[in-house]
Amino acid sequence: MDRRALDIQANRRAQKWTRKELLGRLVWEFLERPLFRWTPRQLWWWRRFILKQFGAKIGNAVQIHPTARISIPWNLEVGDYSAIGDSAIIYCLGPIKIGRSVTVSQYAHLCAGTHDFRQVDMPLIKAQITIADEVWVCANAFIGPDTVIGARAIVAAAAVVVRDVGSDLIVGGNPAVQVSVRT
Amino acid sequence: MDRRALDIQANRRAQKWTRKELLGRLVWEFLERPLFRWTPRQLWWWRRFILKQFGAKIGNAVQIHPTARISIPWNLEVGDYSAIGDSAIIYCLGPIKIGRSVTVSQYAHLCAGTHDFRQVDMPLIKAQITIADEVWVCANAFIGPDTVIGARAIVAAAAVVVRDVGSDLIVGGNPAVQVSVRT
Amino acid sequence: MDRRALDIQANRRAQKWTRKELLGRLVWEFLERPLFRWTPRQLWWWRRFILKQFGAKIGNAVQIHPTARISIPWNLEVGDYSAIGDSAIIYCLGPIKIGRSVTVSQYAHLCAGTHDFRQVDMPLIKAQITIADEVWVCANAFIGPDTVIGARAIVAAAAVVVRDVGSDLIVGGNPAVQVSVRT
Repeated sequence: MDRRALDIQANRRAQKWTRKELLGRLVWEFLERPLFRWTPRQLWWWRRFILKQFGAKIGNAVQIHPTARISIPWNLEVGDYSAIGDSAIIYCLGPIKIGRSVTVSQYAHLCAGTHDFRQVDMPLIKAQITIADEVWVCANAFIGPDTVIGARAIVAAAAVVVRDVGSDLIVGGNPAVQVSVRT
Repeated sequence: MDRRALDIQANRRAQKWTRKELLGRLVWEFLERPLFRWTPRQLWWWRRFILKQFGAKIGNAVQIHPTARISIPWNLEVGDYSAIGDSAIIYCLGPIKIGRSVTVSQYAHLCAGTHDFRQVDMPLIKAQITIADEVWVCANAFIGPDTVIGARAIVAAAAVVVRDVGSDLIVGGNPAVQVSVRT
Repeated sequence: MDRRALDIQANRRAQKWTRKELLGRLVWEFLERPLFRWTPRQLWWWRRFILKQFGAKIGNAVQIHPTARISIPWNLEVGDYSAIGDSAIIYCLGPIKIGRSVTVSQYAHLCAGTHDFRQVDMPLIKAQITIADEVWVCANAFIGPDTVIGARAIVAAAAVVVRDVGSDLIVGGNPAVQVSVRT
């Protein structure tokens, strides 16, 4: 069989980020703890302020828990009144756009990155996740790369979403399938 | 379509906790790390003692790992000889009652809270979870709100329980279904 | 019914580890944070060095993230060019052997331990996990005890593996089933 071995070194040599991005990630890596994670839960306004300094677009009255993990702040956009819960993982290697009045519950994982495994150097793909208004991503749910969650949809606890979810649908399971409709 | 928008502000204005509860949660938020999480694994008796000071009912010889996350100690009840493992999430917004000789393995998540998504202010629901004697909740399992796990049942690793589980059953998958019987 | 109650005390009395192992685990428990977890991401060589001091077999150019959780370093073997991502859980109560050019993505959980629930003292089983060359274990995946993942297989995000996975297969879901073939 004419198979070529993976070339991990080529993957690592690849220029995935600009110099400016690399510098920003380094600064965020060192300041995330003191300026964000180690803040009291009640200081919602402070964490909004800090995220905006790092280029995030954060709406009014957004509540982001101090234990939420935000990989790259400038790739994050969150609309008014939305909330991101305890220990939620916002893995925004690519853009993650969250609408208004969205709830992302504790330990949910939004994963906006993957690899092209069809190539020997498995290049990084910066994917996008779009979550429309009034969606509820329940606890422990996993939202995969390149997905769109339609308005008012509910992703049930621990559901694993790998395809787009239509508006008003309630999906659950792994992989997530429609289980009901929000009325 | 005659749909009313979500009213997140109404949700946030709602009085979900008494003054005493709010104060207790604040104190626990600040003392959980130094008094509980940062203790050496071997000090089982000390963490039992601390949890009891915060109103938990903890039986004899209970072993709770320092990295376990207990949201509201006074909502937790654990029977003799039970164990709660590394990084288990005990999200007891409502009461979580764990029987005797129960094992909750590492990274399991007991989620005793949800929202009523049929109302525009998505009010918090403090649900209950009851885990009977000799149950084993395996690693990474998720136990949803308002569930009862019957005596001696086993919830397999990474299983997602959203309905009651009968005694002696072994359940697995997402959503969890019966896969065997414990004999 | 002639059922004997669980004997958790017998489980705890059992000699699961040698004196040397107990001492090693205690030292690792106290040094893991300062020497491993609290190191800057860029210091890959340093963490390889530290893990080797604790008996791990670590190949060339291996990249292990500082937030990865490695229970017992001397039970871990990782081949050249492999990577273990952010917050991955390497629960190596038994041996975990990872081949060359393997990627274990963020928050994946390799669980090489279980209990024999057919016995009243639920004795600890130190199981083995073997992951062959060029495998990709995606984010949030769970790999259960006593499993072998064949060369070049891909375990999709949040998949739950409880049986061996053949070479070149792509598996997903909970429990994981074949969804495609890697070509």
